[in-house]
Amino acid sequence: MSNRFVKRASEKSGLPPGTIVHVGDKRTEAVKITVIDYDKDHCQMKEITDVEELLSFRDNPTVTWINIDGVHDVTIIERLGRSFSIHPLVLEDILHTTQRPKIEDFEGYIYIVLQMFYLSDRKGEHDAGPEVISEQVSLILGPNFVISLQEAGGDTFDPIRMRLKASKGRIREMGADYLAYALIDSIVDNYFVILEKLGELIEMLEDELLADPGPDTLEKLHVLRNEMIFLRKSAWPLREVLNRLLREESGLISRTTQIYIKDIYDHIIQVIDTIETYRDMLSGMLDIYLSSISNRMNEVMKVLTIIATIFIPLTFLAGVYGMNFRYMPELSWKWGYPFLWLIMITIGITMFFYFRKKKWL
Amino acid sequence: MSNRFVKRASEKSGLPPGTIVHVGDKRTEAVKITVIDYDKDHCQMKEITDVEELLSFRDNPTVTWINIDGVHDVTIIERLGRSFSIHPLVLEDILHTTQRPKIEDFEGYIYIVLQMFYLSDRKGEHDAGPEVISEQVSLILGPNFVISLQEAGGDTFDPIRMRLKASKGRIREMGADYLAYALIDSIVDNYFVILEKLGELIEMLEDELLADPGPDTLEKLHVLRNEMIFLRKSAWPLREVLNRLLREESGLISRTTQIYIKDIYDHIIQVIDTIETYRDMLSGMLDIYLSSISNRMNEVMKVLTIIATIFIPLTFLAGVYGMNFRYMPELSWKWGYPFLWLIMITIGITMFFYFRKKKWL
Amino acid sequence: MSNRFVKRASEKSGLPPGTIVHVGDKRTEAVKITVIDYDKDHCQMKEITDVEELLSFRDNPTVTWINIDGVHDVTIIERLGRSFSIHPLVLEDILHTTQRPKIEDFEGYIYIVLQMFYLSDRKGEHDAGPEVISEQVSLILGPNFVISLQEAGGDTFDPIRMRLKASKGRIREMGADYLAYALIDSIVDNYFVILEKLGELIEMLEDELLADPGPDTLEKLHVLRNEMIFLRKSAWPLREVLNRLLREESGLISRTTQIYIKDIYDHIIQVIDTIETYRDMLSGMLDIYLSSISNRMNEVMKVLTIIATIFIPLTFLAGVYGMNFRYMPELSWKWGYPFLWLIMITIGITMFFYFRKKKWL
Amino acid sequence: MSNRFVKRASEKSGLPPGTIVHVGDKRTEAVKITVIDYDKDHCQMKEITDVEELLSFRDNPTVTWINIDGVHDVTIIERLGRSFSIHPLVLEDILHTTQRPKIEDFEGYIYIVLQMFYLSDRKGEHDAGPEVISEQVSLILGPNFVISLQEAGGDTFDPIRMRLKASKGRIREMGADYLAYALIDSIVDNYFVILEKLGELIEMLEDELLADPGPDTLEKLHVLRNEMIFLRKSAWPLREVLNRLLREESGLISRTTQIYIKDIYDHIIQVIDTIETYRDMLSGMLDIYLSSISNRMNEVMKVLTIIATIFIPLTFLAGVYGMNFRYMPELSWKWGYPFLWLIMITIGITMFFYFRKKKWL
Amino acid sequence: MSNRFVKRASEKSGLPPGTIVHVGDKRTEAVKITVIDYDKDHCQMKEITDVEELLSFRDNPTVTWINIDGVHDVTIIERLGRSFSIHPLVLEDILHTTQRPKIEDFEGYIYIVLQMFYLSDRKGEHDAGPEVISEQVSLILGPNFVISLQEAGGDTFDPIRMRLKASKGRIREMGADYLAYALIDSIVDNYFVILEKLGELIEMLEDELLADPGPDTLEKLHVLRNEMIFLRKSAWPLREVLNRLLREESGLISRTTQIYIKDIYDHIIQVIDTIETYRDMLSGMLDIYLSSISNRMNEVMKVLTIIATIFIPLTFLAGVYGMNFRYMPELSWKWGYPFLWLIMITIGITMFFYFRKKKWL
Repeated sequence: MSNRFVKRASEKSGLPPGTIVHVGDKRTEAVKITVIDYDKDHCQMKEITDVEELLSFRDNPTVTWINIDGVHDVTIIERLGRSFSIHPLVLEDILHTTQRPKIEDFEGYIYIVLQMFYLSDRKGEHDAGPEVISEQVSLILGPNFVISLQEAGGDTFDPIRMRLKASKGRIREMGADYLAYALIDSIVDNYFVILEKLGELIEMLEDELLADPGPDTLEKLHVLRNEMIFLRKSAWPLREVLNRLLREESGLISRTTQIYIKDIYDHIIQVIDTIETYRDMLSGMLDIYLSSISNRMNEVMKVLTIIATIFIPLTFLAGVYGMNFRYMPELSWKWGYPFLWLIMITIGITMFFYFRKKKWL
Repeated sequence: MSNRFVKRASEKSGLPPGTIVHVGDKRTEAVKITVIDYDKDHCQMKEITDVEELLSFRDNPTVTWINIDGVHDVTIIERLGRSFSIHPLVLEDILHTTQRPKIEDFEGYIYIVLQMFYLSDRKGEHDAGPEVISEQVSLILGPNFVISLQEAGGDTFDPIRMRLKASKGRIREMGADYLAYALIDSIVDNYFVILEKLGELIEMLEDELLADPGPDTLEKLHVLRNEMIFLRKSAWPLREVLNRLLREESGLISRTTQIYIKDIYDHIIQVIDTIETYRDMLSGMLDIYLSSISNRMNEVMKVLTIIATIFIPLTFLAGVYGMNFRYMPELSWKWGYPFLWLIMITIGITMFFYFRKKKWL
Repeated sequence: MSNRFVKRASEKSGLPPGTIVHVGDKRTEAVKITVIDYDKDHCQMKEITDVEELLSFRDNPTVTWINIDGVHDVTIIERLGRSFSIHPLVLEDILHTTQRPKIEDFEGYIYIVLQMFYLSDRKGEHDAGPEVISEQVSLILGPNFVISLQEAGGDTFDPIRMRLKASKGRIREMGADYLAYALIDSIVDNYFVILEKLGELIEMLEDELLADPGPDTLEKLHVLRNEMIFLRKSAWPLREVLNRLLREESGLISRTTQIYIKDIYDHIIQVIDTIETYRDMLSGMLDIYLSSISNRMNEVMKVLTIIATIFIPLTFLAGVYGMNFRYMPELSWKWGYPFLWLIMITIGITMFFYFRKKKWL
Repeated sequence: MSNRFVKRASEKSGLPPGTIVHVGDKRTEAVKITVIDYDKDHCQMKEITDVEELLSFRDNPTVTWINIDGVHDVTIIERLGRSFSIHPLVLEDILHTTQRPKIEDFEGYIYIVLQMFYLSDRKGEHDAGPEVISEQVSLILGPNFVISLQEAGGDTFDPIRMRLKASKGRIREMGADYLAYALIDSIVDNYFVILEKLGELIEMLEDELLADPGPDTLEKLHVLRNEMIFLRKSAWPLREVLNRLLREESGLISRTTQIYIKDIYDHIIQVIDTIETYRDMLSGMLDIYLSSISNRMNEVMKVLTIIATIFIPLTFLAGVYGMNFRYMPELSWKWGYPFLWLIMITIGITMFFYFRKKKWL
Repeated sequence: MSNRFVKRASEKSGLPPGTIVHVGDKRTEAVKITVIDYDKDHCQMKEITDVEELLSFRDNPTVTWINIDGVHDVTIIERLGRSFSIHPLVLEDILHTTQRPKIEDFEGYIYIVLQMFYLSDRKGEHDAGPEVISEQVSLILGPNFVISLQEAGGDTFDPIRMRLKASKGRIREMGADYLAYALIDSIVDNYFVILEKLGELIEMLEDELLADPGPDTLEKLHVLRNEMIFLRKSAWPLREVLNRLLREESGLISRTTQIYIKDIYDHIIQVIDTIETYRDMLSGMLDIYLSSISNRMNEVMKVLTIIATIFIPLTFLAGVYGMNFRYMPELSWKWGYPFLWLIMITIGITMFFYFRKKKWL
């Protein structure tokens, strides 16, 4: 699982900086380029295959959203880079799909990297709940265009497409900056979905822990803990990204949109808070688990001790009267045998009450 | 319990920002709108049903306090928003009742979100003490009005209503900012009540821990620890809210009122201090609990070991003289049997003193 | 013990801010007001009963130190407030005796709250060392007066009274700010006395821990740990108070006195350092304690295992030759019995050396 | 292993500052000085033996890269220092090869110390994975030259040499600052290679931990934990170095190059993130390990307890009927023996179901 | 050991501030005052007995280094204070020998307190390695003089004396600030010596821990951990001292010397880094220790369980055939006895393979 953190980065080691090589393993069948061009009054949606077609959109005054699903085709990215004069380091980052969220200011555009999360079934392993998978989303925000690049085309942006088509909300009336905001917002909203699901898992685990903990519980705890580490690694820099967007002074983001960005900023802080809270709760649960193992071992020990301390002395007595000494007066007493039973039962009962007093029973 | 942290946030995921949807589960029967309009000389209190009635209050120079119990009726909130020109994101936050405390500056008004706590009986579970429940309170402070919105009408604000009616203290002589202060103060005061109750529970638990800890103790510890995590999650941002109120420069808060706000700021710091102290104490108590389990297991082991090490050799001896060898000279000795008893008693006493020396007895 | 942290704060909940109610439980028999009025040449000390008498002292140019022992008499505090025009929130804080150390700037005076510590015997509990008790001291520093208010009149300020009478050191030559400094200094000095005593207790505990730890040790550890939490809760804000006194620009504190305050600032940092060090040491000691329990359990287990593994096989052998089969050739051998003894002794010795090799003996 | 952290620093203690003494243990056979002199159009590579030869390169306008493999020859370093007027403290740091990464601004040049890591087989120890070894690299960046000094000539810089020769990428078109950037970049890239390898080890260890943990696992965990401490110690200051390079205002670093340096800065933050994540995961794994030991002990205890509690009572019964009392009526019952077997089997089966109910089986 | 932290500070409690009382326990036989007066061309060294002799040195333009070994003679310190017009609080700090490192700016001089460390044999205790002892060194840096005060005259400054006499390095050419630098440098260099020694101890302990841990190991771990706490307590403020020296603007420290001070600053950061790393490693070692105890207990348990589970059933069988029932057909079977042996051996072997499969053997 740990290789989610450093994916084949070493393959690139030694290449000149700015070399455009794809690093990642999510490949859609074919790269899909969709353009949505809109202003208040009209909205046109179109799937294109040739990057050069984009040039006309770049230069007209309407807002253009170019969405690219699949970043493994290096030539397309390179031609896109040339068309929109994107810095080679940005192109490198787009293809190297394990960036931490960051924001970079360039002449004429802002480059934002985000991680989008979804849950996926964990295959082959015993049921340890769903796995959190991340996918890199790159956004390039220019004066009147937004380019979004996803590793694998997901459906997270579909509601935004619908809103654009239906002209619902204020999205059609506002600029490219608001579109970028809407895209980021839908990614951050997704965190809540993930966290809610994980929260349910934690709750179920908590019940299991208090009712009937087993080694299985421990493994689930471990998996959830790692998921939190994974989410956290991406949520903290996202906060910084949004903070810098808020204090952005390039003129690409309008004052009105910044109010909305402040709202996502609050959301991401809430996300971070929740992650930290879950971590806290999980570490508390580990303590409980360890205590419960100890408690159980205590139970086992008590059973052994009770049985052993009651019967060992009795067995000793039985052993004594099984000896073959010629001169053992007790053996020929008439009431010797029942009397010994009496003694043994007395010892047993005494022990029983002793343990009851000690609260072992 | 963990779903206290992320309540059905996912339901909203995908909707356009600023969409006004109620997220929460505390619903009073009907929304209740109460208006208190006062200045130094008069004070009028009135329950209204139509939001438009509020407009007259908005425009007169007296201080107006509009209190709304229940935020699940979306139309009322929307009409309120239009009447007082509240930003749609604020309306969204009012209805989405799991905000972390925050403050936001808008043209003409300040929007503050707070969490109010009360204790409630934990149902269905074995007696683990009361549960801390939170309710979101939104405040909108304008030049001459305060709008307060509660999820469920509680009685926390009743003393302030009484003071207004009775014209007790300086509240009638001062502006809307002082009213907002008084509302926040009563919420922060409530923290102390909760903390005092939790402090008592901790103290009781500490006594139980040192006297007679059981698995039950552990669960109570766990529950209290989670309550602290829950309170803390809300107290820290509240501190930030008050700090920003102190440095507020919109002119909505007078210099005189800021002295009072400084006072609440000190209180919330004391609250945070106490929460951290309790957390510290609870984690210390967990260590004690773990040690006491180990100590107890030690006790159990010692009992077993003492019994076993005393009787096992004796049983062996009895076994030896229970053997049926034809030529065992000891068996026919006249004093063989009493002599063996002597040996066995000597072994027993020696062992006893050995364990006493080792401080196991 | 935990209710040291939030004392009956809830009693006040719901009252209007600035309401003057006494919260605390240390009450001297009667409130005692002492005035010391001095300049370089003369020094007059006087016990007064009527607050109005103080007015003459307020207006003359000499330095006046008003010391009030006992703050439970609300009327006296109120009349004092009126005489020296103290803000009602300050009066509230004076009476509410669980403030965390803080400093507040007002027009014409500075208000400082401190916590003074002393050790007291812990009653009713098994000998867990002395308990740290705190008492709130309020200081009001004006241009030519200092008002000090203590919950219960202690003797901490006696040396300062002596110095004033004897005109020892530079105290008589300097202003009210130096007097305030001297009072704070004597309170901070007291921390060292407490810490030294606690340091000795830690040292004794450390010796006990390495020599002969018991459940008693654990409880002492727990108590000391809580004392540290308690001290720390007051030392950290005190640092902030002194830092703000250093950067004070109201003109009430002269440049010369600030050099002295820098000195107390260094002391309180040393206090905090020491508290943190002690906390570190105590948490290290808990680890040692836990290890020593485990070690001891190991010892117990070894004794049991050695005895059991030596005798169980021997008992088995004895059992075999106690069987009553008709055809057991060994039983009728002449040397059967001594030969079996030989075998059993051999087994015993082998086991012994086996355990010795494993370093269990 | 710990002496990786403070290498023979004490040897130097007491010497006057700026004394040039070599501290370190990596010595190549002979010091090797290579000069690469290039501009856009030509590129000359040459190995030299006399430091004075370098003077001509210093003064011409082309970019000169002087690479020195081996820093143990004090005279060479001293003559280099004189030729390029390097401050004696810099020379001291070059030779003292356990510096933490740092950057220092001097008149006319910038001095940068870095640590380069590579993996080496751990000799003599049981297979605990490869060891992380560090080598100090010093860079001196002047207006048109870069001097790089390595302890032992590695091959990390080879790709850069190739790029220079082949005129690949933009390296030949840019100044000495870009060359310095390229060198640092190749060092930081190396971190990813190390981390990826360590990540694989962690993953393998995680599998081992969940499947079949042993004392061996613990040692590997310990070794990996120490490697993380070691890497972290160097990564954190490297971040600071790059941050200061970004804010460098000496004019030695062009605006264009700073964009590239921002890129390495992002990389090192990713490195630090990953290290912290790995630390987190390793400490989580230790908890799992401890729990699994406890679980296993629980298993052992259960086996013992089951066997003992089933057979001890039975053995007692057998003992009873092995007694030699003259009057034991059961012994002469016809069905006594089979009946006793019946009882004993019943007890055994009852016990079995009892343990099954308790989930011990 | 804990009283290393607060040494008899309480003795001073209650005295007026600035009271000059010696607090400490290191007393050389007699106070020794040495003066070294030098400039570029000459260097005069002299031991004096009368403080007034120093006055002539104070006023001449050459650099004067006054070294005082032993600070327990209050009169000497007082007369020194008067001669060089030192603030009484400084004199108080010189005598109160448990200051944390600090720097203070006064009119005409800078006062610096440092802690110098050396290792000393730990007396009376079982071999737990050397103890770290601290000694306070006070430096007063004036325009052309440095006064250094040590508790007990050590030989740390000897190399500097030698360099002055021999005119080695640049020390004779530079001012009093460079001398102060050299003194501080030699103290910081000493940290490396201590850390290297402690590093070796940690390494030895690590080997012991992995090879053969015992309760002894734990105590050594505890002692080393406390030494780290002790060193750390002094290293952190030293960093602050050097940082403030770097930003010193009194004109007493020249720009050239500040480059050298930057160098010590880097060293102390390296010291702090190393201390933190050691703390990290020691806490990792404690975890290993705890795991190894648990592992060992597991071993013990397994031995017990194997022996008991093999022999208990066999003993039971032997017990059965030792019973005296009249009607036990097996007893009279011809092959009963060898057959039983066969059964018992089969059981034993089965158990053996069972445990082997469970990897207990």
